[in-house]
Amino acid sequence: MSFSGQIIALDAMGGDFGPRVVVPAAALALQELKGDVRFLLFGDQAQIQPFFNKYPDLAASATVHHTTQVVANDEKPSAVIRRKDTSMRLAIEAVKAGKAQSVVSAGNTGALMASAKLVLRCLPGIERPAIASLLPTMKGDVVMLDLGANLVCDAAMLTQFAVLGAVYSRAIKGHETPCVGILNVGAEDVKGPDHVREAAAFLAKAEFPGKFYGFVEGDDLFKGVADVVVTDGFTGNIALKVAEGAGKITSFYMKDAFMSSFSAKLGALLARRALAKAKMRMDPRAYNGGMFLGLDGICVKSHGGMDSYGFSRAILVAANLVSQGYNDIVAKEIRALADGKTPSGGEKEACDA
Amino acid sequence: MSFSGQIIALDAMGGDFGPRVVVPAAALALQELKGDVRFLLFGDQAQIQPFFNKYPDLAASATVHHTTQVVANDEKPSAVIRRKDTSMRLAIEAVKAGKAQSVVSAGNTGALMASAKLVLRCLPGIERPAIASLLPTMKGDVVMLDLGANLVCDAAMLTQFAVLGAVYSRAIKGHETPCVGILNVGAEDVKGPDHVREAAAFLAKAEFPGKFYGFVEGDDLFKGVADVVVTDGFTGNIALKVAEGAGKITSFYMKDAFMSSFSAKLGALLARRALAKAKMRMDPRAYNGGMFLGLDGICVKSHGGMDSYGFSRAILVAANLVSQGYNDIVAKEIRALADGKTPSGGEKEACDA
Repeated sequence: MSFSGQIIALDAMGGDFGPRVVVPAAALALQELKGDVRFLLFGDQAQIQPFFNKYPDLAASATVHHTTQVVANDEKPSAVIRRKDTSMRLAIEAVKAGKAQSVVSAGNTGALMASAKLVLRCLPGIERPAIASLLPTMKGDVVMLDLGANLVCDAAMLTQFAVLGAVYSRAIKGHETPCVGILNVGAEDVKGPDHVREAAAFLAKAEFPGKFYGFVEGDDLFKGVADVVVTDGFTGNIALKVAEGAGKITSFYMKDAFMSSFSAKLGALLARRALAKAKMRMDPRAYNGGMFLGLDGICVKSHGGMDSYGFSRAILVAANLVSQGYNDIVAKEIRALADGKTPSGGEKEACDA
Repeated sequence: MSFSGQIIALDAMGGDFGPRVVVPAAALALQELKGDVRFLLFGDQAQIQPFFNKYPDLAASATVHHTTQVVANDEKPSAVIRRKDTSMRLAIEAVKAGKAQSVVSAGNTGALMASAKLVLRCLPGIERPAIASLLPTMKGDVVMLDLGANLVCDAAMLTQFAVLGAVYSRAIKGHETPCVGILNVGAEDVKGPDHVREAAAFLAKAEFPGKFYGFVEGDDLFKGVADVVVTDGFTGNIALKVAEGAGKITSFYMKDAFMSSFSAKLGALLARRALAKAKMRMDPRAYNGGMFLGLDGICVKSHGGMDSYGFSRAILVAANLVSQGYNDIVAKEIRALADGKTPSGGEKEACDA
């Protein structure tokens, strides 16, 4: 993969820590991307500059666009979109103006989505953008979307999310014909609300850049039965956070158990390296980067509380999407879907069991 | 708590194992309930009878109502409700006729809910029944509902679920004024779809048998911030199963780690008692029993794949609901809610942080 010549816009003030995390994250990403990229940092010059001293390579590859205006974490999206001089807005505008190919921000999700939609607009044929993320499963990662951009979805939106997710899985995870499922309360055709069943009936026959798996139940999500799982933003957001909470309580019970006796403490000591490795496999930092898919421009949201390693993963996601020409492929596939190449009517290839 | 004189109807043929699980489960429950209850078992006499030989106490406390008709696991609810001689239907009819105070079945959830609604009807003032269950949290158990009975809900249904859940929490967990939250994508008032915000606005002012916590995000569910968490059946079902799946993948990574080196294996051996205790705290059998709340009769669903210990927990849930007069309290509280005792307008007591 070549990242040569890419310019990445960063909202240096977003998230819980601002430049303290964003600048070291950019330095880390620059190293991993072998110096092939440049950064535009938007934010308060006085706050950003001191961090540059520690990273001379980054300082040589970055330009700071000064602004003192910052989007607060609790600001309403409707108010934010009227403010045109915030670090977040200016970073997005850089993509619109062609000065950068992608933007990464750890700011307020609602404000970032509203601003990105307003400035970048949707790709032709896409009604609404979706937030996607990777999750670990027992068999590789799964792309899940929408994670909160659209609280209420209809069947057409779910089918568009299937295309957005499938192209993502192909571009980033290398699955040529990814297996796409829809999150539902049961596996049988008759289960679920109308819009979910309609979307499934359409995808079962449609030509799209993937195979249709059928319905995926909540407990199957982590078994890796599908490469892409599609749902509405309300359910997706809650499912993602419930998974996080369930993982935490399981670890909490384990830790409690390890402290409960002398032999358990000794056991934990002996197994500590192995347990650290297990923890690494679920490291939320490695899965950081909520992709805003369906916009006419690459925009990635980092979790607000991430450290610089986590934020650097979000930068890599953005760089990868650009180098794979993600948006060009989506535009082509959505055109094909609309051009009546669907439904094909023929027998579809089945997903592997 | 006295269970004296209670009669419990059991669908002996439901679930993956039928009488092989149901009969030993009844024997176990009889022991724990100190012999104070009687059982009516509905199903195939020839299949049930052999299991009685091992449990003479149960045989003396149980009556078998013979039927060879059984509801299949994949049968559509619409077809099932026309069949009046199945073990499931006859067990529900026993409650309607006053021959039993509660019914427990491990059969097909959709069929059980449809049949129970048809036969028992809703309590006055309740539009739709909900499925509730207990989940473990870091601070005691939480009652969560709806878990799949109503895939699409409006604000009124969510507020009724709040009453059903609060009375449950008071009756079974002893919380005098339980803290009730609504599952949502964010904690702020402006977050979430219309019906969720409407229900929250109502509960924040209403007099109901609990305090209103506000919105609960997915990752807060297991922190135990609320005693009751309300949501629609689509989201609830998926959240519950995602939690199950996330717990499993966490354990899977841990087990994998314990096998990865000699010292890790030794560590696991030393900690095995403690780890078994941690597993016990999340034992799905202990949390078995989906309560169908809001019906004019107590109906509890056991998970289809449960063993006899798990099924016996579902029987205890039913016996407890009856002994606490759950339905009488709900009927009174729903009347009060409708009688304009709400909204009170005054400042509400806050939940503990």
